[in-house]
Amino acid sequence: MAMNEDMNTSTLRGPLDHEIRDQIINAATQHFGHYGYEKTTVSDLAKAIGFSKAYIYKFFDSKQAIGGVICSNRLAMIMQIVEAAMAEAPTASEKLRRLFRSISEAGSDLFFHDRKLYDIAAVASRDQWPSVKAHELRIRELIQQIVLEGRESGEFERKTPLDEAVNAIFLILRPYVNSAQLQYNLDTAAEAAVHLPALILRSLAP
Amino acid sequence: MAMNEDMNTSTLRGPLDHEIRDQIINAATQHFGHYGYEKTTVSDLAKAIGFSKAYIYKFFDSKQAIGGVICSNRLAMIMQIVEAAMAEAPTASEKLRRLFRSISEAGSDLFFHDRKLYDIAAVASRDQWPSVKAHELRIRELIQQIVLEGRESGEFERKTPLDEAVNAIFLILRPYVNSAQLQYNLDTAAEAAVHLPALILRSLAP
Repeated sequence: MAMNEDMNTSTLRGPLDHEIRDQIINAATQHFGHYGYEKTTVSDLAKAIGFSKAYIYKFFDSKQAIGGVICSNRLAMIMQIVEAAMAEAPTASEKLRRLFRSISEAGSDLFFHDRKLYDIAAVASRDQWPSVKAHELRIRELIQQIVLEGRESGEFERKTPLDEAVNAIFLILRPYVNSAQLQYNLDTAAEAAVHLPALILRSLAP
Repeated sequence: MAMNEDMNTSTLRGPLDHEIRDQIINAATQHFGHYGYEKTTVSDLAKAIGFSKAYIYKFFDSKQAIGGVICSNRLAMIMQIVEAAMAEAPTASEKLRRLFRSISEAGSDLFFHDRKLYDIAAVASRDQWPSVKAHELRIRELIQQIVLEGRESGEFERKTPLDEAVNAIFLILRPYVNSAQLQYNLDTAAEAAVHLPALILRSLAP
């Protein structure tokens, strides 16, 4: 049931369709922000935009398909911030520190300080929507790249099986990646973003 | 608002009062289990037990006071399991492993496999009821004891400030202590209970 995010019955036919899709997404972002994702139906949305429900269904299969696009957009923004933060780090150790800091800051900012889209993010994380799964996979890949880089440069030990090291680091970071969990960790996110990579770097010392 | 858990206007007057309190707690445990904590009112509860609402208020100040006792009982059971698991561990390292394993198993079992009281646990964790805060404090103290013991025996390094090491370990364990978060980690709790202490022990190596 959670698998049809991002899928549509209609195919895109051109710039006009693209514009209408954007218009629906923007209106839905506003509307979900006011009334919450779970409480809003596609009928509510249609009424608010001034489209018929049938017309919206020409562009999106379901409410979740709309929520999925909004969620994907947000996660793509977070990933851009994370990659920008890591790009210029001189060492694998510094990359790990920046990964933790940027994930925890971008997550807190985008989903909670503006708080509007928290509802979608929490549902998406709880139900593990495809965009959320893809995001978590991408984060795990970043961790693996960092560990491999640090092993090659001699910053990190090489005894622990790679999978085990990467998985444990991912499990430590996950409560700050997953929006449904991050809400319980906002108070400690800033100190966690410093103390957790410090502990992990001690564990990676050769 | 979340601070009056466990407080009652009436003082206990004897064995009969104690019995009636137990009767209310048992009935509430059943009732919350069926209908959920958040959806149940004290009136619902009174009707179900066959007491008047006023009579229940002679023993408990509020619904939260009742939920607080149920939650405290559960957390006390978890703590007994944790302490029993750690008691016979021969080293600080083994204590740390057993702490992670027992917390994650006891939490999963008591709150989720029987799933009945999840609703209370999640509300209590989300709103940080006093019993939950006390439980988290106790877990943090256990971690500190383990780190101190390992530093004294020479199993662990002594360079990192004690507070920082203890806090980071607590932050790693917390998603498995906090019931509101544990629900998102049930799938990975078993592997986490092995891989996380292993990573932490590498970080503590002298």
